[in-house]
Amino acid sequence: MQDSFIAAPPKELVLEEGFRFSHGETIAPFRIAYETFGELNADKSNAILVCHALSASAHAAGRYSEGDEKPGWWDGLIGYGKGIDLDKYFVICANLPGSPFGTTAPHSIDPATGKPYGSRYPWPTIEDMVHSQKLLLDRLGITHLRSIAGGSLGGMQVLMWAALYPELMDSIIAMATGCAVPVQGIAWHIIGRKIIESDARFRGGDYYEDPEPLRGLQVARMVGHMTYLSAEALQRKFGRRRRGTTRQFEIDSYFEHQGRKFAGLYDANSYIRVQAGMDEMDLAEQFGTLEEAFAKWRGKSLLISFDTDWLFPVEEAERIETAMRTNGVDVRHEPIASTNGHDTFLIDYDLITPPVRQFLGSL
Amino acid sequence: MQDSFIAAPPKELVLEEGFRFSHGETIAPFRIAYETFGELNADKSNAILVCHALSASAHAAGRYSEGDEKPGWWDGLIGYGKGIDLDKYFVICANLPGSPFGTTAPHSIDPATGKPYGSRYPWPTIEDMVHSQKLLLDRLGITHLRSIAGGSLGGMQVLMWAALYPELMDSIIAMATGCAVPVQGIAWHIIGRKIIESDARFRGGDYYEDPEPLRGLQVARMVGHMTYLSAEALQRKFGRRRRGTTRQFEIDSYFEHQGRKFAGLYDANSYIRVQAGMDEMDLAEQFGTLEEAFAKWRGKSLLISFDTDWLFPVEEAERIETAMRTNGVDVRHEPIASTNGHDTFLIDYDLITPPVRQFLGSL
Repeated sequence: MQDSFIAAPPKELVLEEGFRFSHGETIAPFRIAYETFGELNADKSNAILVCHALSASAHAAGRYSEGDEKPGWWDGLIGYGKGIDLDKYFVICANLPGSPFGTTAPHSIDPATGKPYGSRYPWPTIEDMVHSQKLLLDRLGITHLRSIAGGSLGGMQVLMWAALYPELMDSIIAMATGCAVPVQGIAWHIIGRKIIESDARFRGGDYYEDPEPLRGLQVARMVGHMTYLSAEALQRKFGRRRRGTTRQFEIDSYFEHQGRKFAGLYDANSYIRVQAGMDEMDLAEQFGTLEEAFAKWRGKSLLISFDTDWLFPVEEAERIETAMRTNGVDVRHEPIASTNGHDTFLIDYDLITPPVRQFLGSL
Repeated sequence: MQDSFIAAPPKELVLEEGFRFSHGETIAPFRIAYETFGELNADKSNAILVCHALSASAHAAGRYSEGDEKPGWWDGLIGYGKGIDLDKYFVICANLPGSPFGTTAPHSIDPATGKPYGSRYPWPTIEDMVHSQKLLLDRLGITHLRSIAGGSLGGMQVLMWAALYPELMDSIIAMATGCAVPVQGIAWHIIGRKIIESDARFRGGDYYEDPEPLRGLQVARMVGHMTYLSAEALQRKFGRRRRGTTRQFEIDSYFEHQGRKFAGLYDANSYIRVQAGMDEMDLAEQFGTLEEAFAKWRGKSLLISFDTDWLFPVEEAERIETAMRTNGVDVRHEPIASTNGHDTFLIDYDLITPPVRQFLGSL
């Protein structure tokens, strides 16, 4: 992508008084890493909050330098002239509590002990993620958003925003997501967690003195990859093909590569916590019904789902669509045919850009 | 099932000269555990071979005693008056090489060392499984079979039989199976194997002095369960329900129960070997095309597939159907609507009994 721009370096908000998690614990001081893209206009009316998914960071778009090989995680959608157009909008993305990319995380040093929080780090909820973003917006003096957008876990935050702060934004864009993780996703998350926890070197979460990457995290990531890939994509990319002249299946080689790469970048305590946070969210359970969850939400809503996504099937978006429509909300649901499963929202920008562009243009 | 009969105790064939595996190793002596059900008629023309799947044994039907709570694994299909009717047929089932239920297995004592074979046990192929059954039939003096039947891995053996010994039987019945495991199944098998192998206590397969069950096998079995269950069954049985008044998801509790139960019955070395054997089979690769694989097969063929089975989708049976039809074989494919996924062939006897009964009646 030659057309990605040079992004500003990450910024940091330090909450000296700390951040209080839903389950009651407070971590102080608490740092929130965030990035902004484009320019905030004079009346602060052009801001869009973007919420990131499991393995991503606040670096949603652009490159840090000319030679930077890897642009932000949603660079295909966010940029000058792109679907979320930085000529018009000011985009904010914050690293969520629990994630290891700058925000105070399990691997961060606890000033009280001089050691990483490790097993003592709280288990963040989706509400915690939303609250941390709300605190950031307050500090930035942004009291209203044009939109909030995200996919997967990011989309769950978007929906939680609509339930908790329905008057703060004009619209929401939620892709490949739902108001609760269906049982298949929960089951795979649970299995991934058990794989990590059964790695003897995990030591209950206090493994930071061990220099070796955790094999459990590598293998858990392989499970994760399976849930992001559609059967079609698996067949097309790998099938039963062997690696070179060996008997090793190509999918095996791919798993090992992805597992090692991920374990070098991510943190096991973060992985199990963020996934558990996803699993715990259930707006219908929390508010009684989905209609109740969105009782005060009146903004325009764009839902995008993918027919090969089996982590968040099209029916999940349909449930939200029905609830919002019952409440009289102007909701548009775009079920998109794709071959890339859950990850379509990170891959097929030709599919997601037109509805996003049209939706934002209609506001 | 009050109507299951009292089965004879397991029998054993001892090959003093040993069994030679496809990859070249020989284990001697080699024991094959098997069971027979019903009566062989005078001209030995009423025998049906049944091939078992991953976690099963030679105990295909009946109970060992009146108080025996658990009948054989296909007791719903095999019995007096049932789909495979013991009033008419003599049924044989042998425990396959690599499986831990009586046939010489990785946990068996190597007389040369006085210790279990462990990591030195060969990696059996589906051909090895078929050859062991052929040896057994030879010793029993059975030179012709009315049919060979099986589901999943058992069905793969059935198809290998049709490719290797096309003149030995009048017919085949293969359910929830294919001529090769599609990439999704391979991927989950590989992940299961990595989970087992990354358990520090697995020690490369030489763990038999360790009295504790292997956590890796428990967790790998949870992955297996996910591949046998349909999305519908998961939703119906568990959904997002919690266990009692706790926050633990019911699916988590189910996983732990099934994982512990399985690890108490099965053996990790067997698990990884039998699954690897499944993954290696590919009749189209082995013979050039499926038509070539079945070039000499002329018997009547019944294929049964289930629309919610994503380990062996309906399309796998369709490929076999097409190849056999091209060869002029009298093949019947029954794609059955079910909600129990891959495991339908072990659960919904009301669905599988009618086509099996009709098919055997038509021979």
